[in-house]
Amino acid sequence: MDAHGQARPGEVSVELPAAFDTGLIFIGRIRTPYATRAECPKNTRESDALATVELDPRYAAGLEGVELFSHLILLYWMDEARRDLIQQIPAHLGRRRGTFALRTPARPNPIALAVVELIRIESPNLIVRNIDCRDGTPLLDIKPYFASIDSVPDARRP
Amino acid sequence: MDAHGQARPGEVSVELPAAFDTGLIFIGRIRTPYATRAECPKNTRESDALATVELDPRYAAGLEGVELFSHLILLYWMDEARRDLIQQIPAHLGRRRGTFALRTPARPNPIALAVVELIRIESPNLIVRNIDCRDGTPLLDIKPYFASIDSVPDARRP
Repeated sequence: MDAHGQARPGEVSVELPAAFDTGLIFIGRIRTPYATRAECPKNTRESDALATVELDPRYAAGLEGVELFSHLILLYWMDEARRDLIQQIPAHLGRRRGTFALRTPARPNPIALAVVELIRIESPNLIVRNIDCRDGTPLLDIKPYFASIDSVPDARRP
Repeated sequence: MDAHGQARPGEVSVELPAAFDTGLIFIGRIRTPYATRAECPKNTRESDALATVELDPRYAAGLEGVELFSHLILLYWMDEARRDLIQQIPAHLGRRRGTFALRTPARPNPIALAVVELIRIESPNLIVRNIDCRDGTPLLDIKPYFASIDSVPDARRP
């Protein structure tokens, strides 16, 4: 998929089911310095910019205790992504690979995740570092990061 | 929330929006030795049991290249979880904490994530280790684990 959301020659799409199985609620928005997808850094560690997680105030009570954690996992919705591409040719790779071996936004359920450093809380907002998404991206979830289950420093990749 | 999905005294719920913002597709099921939620281990590292990720065959081409990674992130849907609890009293904690400071299944969007070790691929199925969910849990996504962005060994928690 290119920066305009178009499939590149050689990319493979799949027919998706006609109906959804369940639904999601957007619980907030992520405010970043990146107005468009083209401006976004390639991954979460390529940016030191701060971002603001604007949580819908109705969920503010859910932040009780979040200050105890240095890092959080954000789940957010890649609302501009195609959902039907099952093999893609990322520009940085130059060859075709399955969607489930890529972190590309384009996937059947375009949920992205980022491990972010919590800088401070201004309830119902969070100020965080290490997020790469477009300004206004819909927020799905905030989870505490547990090194004991989430950190695998020696995980192998190509 | 107790093992039957009932709120405990002192837990706080919130009124959710009347409509969903977008929809999810179940792309497979996770087969585990745990028939009910009560049998599930407390977290993903408490079990050495193997699990089978049964991917819907229509998405099998998406696995191309997954074998290059030692660890994957699975996103799955906690279909039995309440979505309206915003402060909860986990049994192991004994006091109230915000949903976003907990890894409890009960949350506005009950998406769980597990970092699993990839044992082998029997396309369209994956055999993995370190997954704590109920047998038959709906699968939402498979992502490669990148230590460079996903691993924070020294993340602080209470």
